Amino acid sequence: MKNVGVAILGLGVVGSGTYKILRDHREFYRQTQGVDISVESVLEINKQKALALGIEESKISDNIAEVVSNPNVDIVVEVIGGVEPAKSFVLAALHSGKSVVTSNKELFCKYWHELERAAKRTNAGLYFEASCVGGVPIIRTLIDGMQANVITDLTGIINGTTNYILTRMTREGADYATVLKDAQALGYAEANPSADVEGYDAAYKLSILSSLAFHTKVPLDKVYREGISGIKAQDIAYGDELGYVLKLLAIGKNGGKGVEVRVHPAFIRKDHPLASVNDSFNAVYLKGDSVGDIMLYGRGAGDFPTGSAIVSDVIYAATHNDVKYATFKNGAQAEPGMKFITDFRSRYYIRFTAKDKAGVLAKVAGIFAKYNISIVDLIQKGEDCENIPIILITHETNEYSVRRALDKIAALEDVVSVDSMIRVEA
Amino acid sequence: MKNVGVAILGLGVVGSGTYKILRDHREFYRQTQGVDISVESVLEINKQKALALGIEESKISDNIAEVVSNPNVDIVVEVIGGVEPAKSFVLAALHSGKSVVTSNKELFCKYWHELERAAKRTNAGLYFEASCVGGVPIIRTLIDGMQANVITDLTGIINGTTNYILTRMTREGADYATVLKDAQALGYAEANPSADVEGYDAAYKLSILSSLAFHTKVPLDKVYREGISGIKAQDIAYGDELGYVLKLLAIGKNGGKGVEVRVHPAFIRKDHPLASVNDSFNAVYLKGDSVGDIMLYGRGAGDFPTGSAIVSDVIYAATHNDVKYATFKNGAQAEPGMKFITDFRSRYYIRFTAKDKAGVLAKVAGIFAKYNISIVDLIQKGEDCENIPIILITHETNEYSVRRALDKIAALEDVVSVDSMIRVEA
Repeated sequence: MKNVGVAILGLGVVGSGTYKILRDHREFYRQTQGVDISVESVLEINKQKALALGIEESKISDNIAEVVSNPNVDIVVEVIGGVEPAKSFVLAALHSGKSVVTSNKELFCKYWHELERAAKRTNAGLYFEASCVGGVPIIRTLIDGMQANVITDLTGIINGTTNYILTRMTREGADYATVLKDAQALGYAEANPSADVEGYDAAYKLSILSSLAFHTKVPLDKVYREGISGIKAQDIAYGDELGYVLKLLAIGKNGGKGVEVRVHPAFIRKDHPLASVNDSFNAVYLKGDSVGDIMLYGRGAGDFPTGSAIVSDVIYAATHNDVKYATFKNGAQAEPGMKFITDFRSRYYIRFTAKDKAGVLAKVAGIFAKYNISIVDLIQKGEDCENIPIILITHETNEYSVRRALDKIAALEDVVSVDSMIRVEA
Repeated sequence: MKNVGVAILGLGVVGSGTYKILRDHREFYRQTQGVDISVESVLEINKQKALALGIEESKISDNIAEVVSNPNVDIVVEVIGGVEPAKSFVLAALHSGKSVVTSNKELFCKYWHELERAAKRTNAGLYFEASCVGGVPIIRTLIDGMQANVITDLTGIINGTTNYILTRMTREGADYATVLKDAQALGYAEANPSADVEGYDAAYKLSILSSLAFHTKVPLDKVYREGISGIKAQDIAYGDELGYVLKLLAIGKNGGKGVEVRVHPAFIRKDHPLASVNDSFNAVYLKGDSVGDIMLYGRGAGDFPTGSAIVSDVIYAATHNDVKYATFKNGAQAEPGMKFITDFRSRYYIRFTAKDKAGVLAKVAGIFAKYNISIVDLIQKGEDCENIPIILITHETNEYSVRRALDKIAALEDVVSVDSMIRVEA
């Protein structure tokens, strides 16, 4: 039987989960995969943490050079997160010819080309299933399951924290600040939640997933990003009345005219398969030219779900001899001539507050008409007040037209405020 | 660039779809997969069909020996279906050292061990993604995506024809015979529909999927099977009132006490992710001990969806050098000592017709009590008739207890008929 030694860099949530899975399934993997996988080394400053997991003292190190030079280590699992020191550690492992398995979406999305160059140099493997959508095998599916297809659309709920917050806001009619506080208390959101709630985490993942789906490097700075911190409970409620659910979507499109990548809150119809993806669950919806619509659904984060993806990569690395790299022609940058669409097309939910005077709607309608924006639905609320909220949904139109129209509308004398603009996607 | 020659055995729906995908994506695969895949041979008696697809006359054959001895052919795609002549053709290809890609669930589920033995002998690859759930990469996911997990549950909607029929019966309140006729006219059901509607097709797939999920051969004859031809429109309507949707489910469980595999109609709660899998869409819901719940959703049949899975396997075979066989210790049979649970546990929806007399319900309740079956919900309909339908839902109980209880109830003097017994699964 093949023996494979693993080193785990960092015993945080995912590192500890990975360690426990490997420890508790060792015999299972011997039987089902024909490979004996043992944890030969862990890099962890907090020695007590490692000892508490039952790791032998001789296998605990605080020195990366020691870990990557250990001849018993074949595969290095990096679960530290962030760019440094993770990047130096991963490069050190690759330089030593060790295969690397990582869950680090930020590192991978920013330095993919550099890491793959280093891996190729020593013929080491480089695996990153755990970087996107936790336990859902989305990367394996893109590389080895949908490779027969030209993928034109990717729509995902790929951040658990924001989906948890939006699900609770929807169910309880609660406002953002209240639910965020609760999510922080329950461990679903970080003390500094901005990486999640402002959409950075989803943007990292979208950059990786759309690069794989579209076979071209989609750099992070090409991803349009808007978070959920500005979402108001009443918009979720109005959307509900109109038959929509609010989600933070990551959208990638490659329609031939260029690539479009964006992360933002969006309404989707209640009967769309993504609409019932709730709490901290994640899902990715794909369209391929041969296969049609496909959806993968599962837990996007957590010790064991993400650990499952890490260990899946470890087993893959241990049982497949040939590594398929995904390096793109142009490395870090987008390929020259590659077009990225920023004036994307969508439908729009718009809410504004106007004085309850005759003629306001006519003026607003005139502005929309000027920008070729046609309106599908219009609701006017609270007829007894001085200021009334007006909600409307447009036909598909261009992003820039809507922004320009809203600037004009905001400048109207009888319009008090333009309150919300939310894209309607499915 | 690596050149890979493909032979396609049979130009039916899937064969033609596969040919078109390969033909139209040749340059795309050169660019994205670094491999030049050409169709070098087709086995097809109907020469006109092949010519109409634009296949050169010199590449059309009606002789399997000629096809498998063609030195330009590396991979043989079998999309004939059924056991013979498909089996002989696949064995001939494997004997010649050609890798085989097949969509043939019946062949694979019945002769898996024999085919793998033949493949191993010549070190040929044997791939069968297309045999289960069309374009959904469920087999790749089980083998290379969820391999870190002990999988305990598999629940699938894995037959498109029955899902199409049940979806239309549900939407339209129509009866089985009417919808079946229409489905046949539209090409969603075969002239002889029994392989689909009686659950054989789903049973083949469940045998394959549960063997992979549970790492042990699950022979076809261990799969309990019940089709949808006896389903009545009123049961779908009563289920709807109670919050359930009816689906033909394929269920595999491996809870440690034994393996349980069954295909039958079942009610599931409307908010379960599988409930919104409609029309000819398929989905598989899995539970792994590390990853938790996962669902894969997509098209389970059709020329291009199934062709997508075939071509995915062709690319996999062309770009991976190491084949992972799944052969089980005991070949064709279940491993000795392996326990299969037939007296499975479920909840039950039961409908029977009784005379509208005092005391009937008391007698029925007495029988249920005798078999330790407790009732959750009971609806009594149509109070003005001589005979009234009674619908009830039980708590979880044993299959055999329910069957015995229903025999006793049917024998009661005031019970006109026991009309329906449908399992309630999620």
